[in-house]
Amino acid sequence: MRTFIRHLGDGKWEDTPLLSYKEEPGTHFKTITRQVLSERSEDFSTEMRYFEIASGGYSTLEKHRHVHMVLIGRGTGHCLVGNEISEVGFHDAIMIPPLTWHQFRATGSQPLGFFCMVKCDRDRPQLPTDEDLRTLRTDPVVGEFIRI
Amino acid sequence: MRTFIRHLGDGKWEDTPLLSYKEEPGTHFKTITRQVLSERSEDFSTEMRYFEIASGGYSTLEKHRHVHMVLIGRGTGHCLVGNEISEVGFHDAIMIPPLTWHQFRATGSQPLGFFCMVKCDRDRPQLPTDEDLRTLRTDPVVGEFIRI
Repeated sequence: MRTFIRHLGDGKWEDTPLLSYKEEPGTHFKTITRQVLSERSEDFSTEMRYFEIASGGYSTLEKHRHVHMVLIGRGTGHCLVGNEISEVGFHDAIMIPPLTWHQFRATGSQPLGFFCMVKCDRDRPQLPTDEDLRTLRTDPVVGEFIRI
Repeated sequence: MRTFIRHLGDGKWEDTPLLSYKEEPGTHFKTITRQVLSERSEDFSTEMRYFEIASGGYSTLEKHRHVHMVLIGRGTGHCLVGNEISEVGFHDAIMIPPLTWHQFRATGSQPLGFFCMVKCDRDRPQLPTDEDLRTLRTDPVVGEFIRI
């Protein structure tokens, strides 16, 4: 178990590879990076990752059974959780309940960086079907916000 | 489940009570506050708390089976993990392995604030016995660092 992971500044950590957010192309827009700060171990079933979305970018619109706990690390942006859109900034905490549509957008001029805690054993994200998108768009504010 | 917990600045969150760190007197020094940012739920077995130690203060020297994952939120200080002492600052991440002595000290002029993730079902901390203290003090640097 790595016990000390030094923050080098600007959302980078010592000996922590800068990974791409998702393997599949086309599920999100603009550069998103991922760094894994805690790994699975027998004694700790939670993974902490740090994501950074370039200005103008967004995370995949998705839902899943497992809960996300998010802590904003730098920058500002907006998030959709269910049908609620919130402006988010430094050290705001966001809980994404099970099976709830969510998306983060880096709407500020700086990258939006956030820590995301999830359990190691988790289900795969579900993407919206055309039917889901129709339902989401019945709320015009949500329809205006989401990016596919 | 609370979905959005706004950071009001200065290590305070909206609708989040400022609690005292431990009920028992005499197990730590100087004001330590605690705020619980995520609560136990069926779908999320991790609790995230934010602690703040006043300048000059320290957390209890203790060990336990469960793992702590710590993320420094503000200020600077030092921590002992096992027999390793590290200077800690903004967004450094620290993992405390099982049954490992640890202590945080706010050695800077500002409060030391940190997020601490633990599983909801966890064992109680163990305090050092006289024998443990003798062993810890065989390393003079550790002996100099610890506060009881």
